Amino acid sequence: MAARRTGRPRDPAINDAILSATRQLLTEVGYTRLTMEGVAARAGVQKPTLYLRYPTKTALVFAAAFGKTAAVDDPDTGSLVGDLTIAYQWLIDELTAPEARAALPGLMADMATDPDGAELVRSLVIAPEYGRVRDRLERAVHRGELRADADLELAIDALIGTVLVRSAILDHPVDHAFSLRAIEMIVAALRPPAG
Amino acid sequence: MAARRTGRPRDPAINDAILSATRQLLTEVGYTRLTMEGVAARAGVQKPTLYLRYPTKTALVFAAAFGKTAAVDDPDTGSLVGDLTIAYQWLIDELTAPEARAALPGLMADMATDPDGAELVRSLVIAPEYGRVRDRLERAVHRGELRADADLELAIDALIGTVLVRSAILDHPVDHAFSLRAIEMIVAALRPPAG
Repeated sequence: MAARRTGRPRDPAINDAILSATRQLLTEVGYTRLTMEGVAARAGVQKPTLYLRYPTKTALVFAAAFGKTAAVDDPDTGSLVGDLTIAYQWLIDELTAPEARAALPGLMADMATDPDGAELVRSLVIAPEYGRVRDRLERAVHRGELRADADLELAIDALIGTVLVRSAILDHPVDHAFSLRAIEMIVAALRPPAG
Repeated sequence: MAARRTGRPRDPAINDAILSATRQLLTEVGYTRLTMEGVAARAGVQKPTLYLRYPTKTALVFAAAFGKTAAVDDPDTGSLVGDLTIAYQWLIDELTAPEARAALPGLMADMATDPDGAELVRSLVIAPEYGRVRDRLERAVHRGELRADADLELAIDALIGTVLVRSAILDHPVDHAFSLRAIEMIVAALRPPAG
């Protein structure tokens, strides 16, 4: 994970303080009124320290609202449904958290009008999250639980998209029963031909 | 379609003018700066006429950005993949249109802070769209092309969510090849057990 990092290691406590302050302010004042200055003050860090880690408000909010589970334990359960149940639970926890629901519309609006900022968010936050889920799906391909030609990116889009529609658009409950049905659907779609 | 409508029939030309004016203003000034007054003026209608049809800006924008294909021809092709290819194409056309991409973040923000308005949007715009796709899936259940216990709502959430993630979050192309792969995935997930 840290292999490519150069220079002085960053203090994880500072990063935690920054992300925690951002999450507090998201639910307190909302996305529009959240500022880099406000986050630096709440976290007790200098602005350059903040900008060094998160060059834009969009990248900061994305990391705070959606990067929370990057440190979550990531065991190899040895089975596809076991792996996916864990992975989907942290995706759901992220996407349905109050700070995520507070941030998402504003983030999408910013990404639509700022292509460079959007690309930064995709490479800093979204790509690693996809990578974590893709790792689990690739293990299942190697075990023969999924078809070798399965479109794994499409499967991840579908898993994430289904939660987004349920939570942010329909305001339907996203509970354990939902998670199981959604995983079952995707596994059925990608399973090797019977026989 | 019109069976339950009571009172004087509404002039479809007026409705077309309202929705067309809304779409123009969405791409010209964006969601935040669009007003009911501006739409009425652009469409050449009185404000009460506008409010009678669309009681809120949220409902108006949702109908303009996402209700466009309600009048599209809806043939029964006799096959699931045929039916879904048509249905998914109008969902994709709606969700990826410039006015929809301009409107979506603002709509989601409004829906998050206005539960009553959100419920109105769901019943006026989203429920009929889901109903159109569900009709096609139910025909396929009756023909035996899909499992009788298939979770059709979940399948529609997944179809819509996958386009949303691709288009509004990843900014990936949503083309015919994508549409075919996504339909194939959902059909594989809901197919009856082989044999």
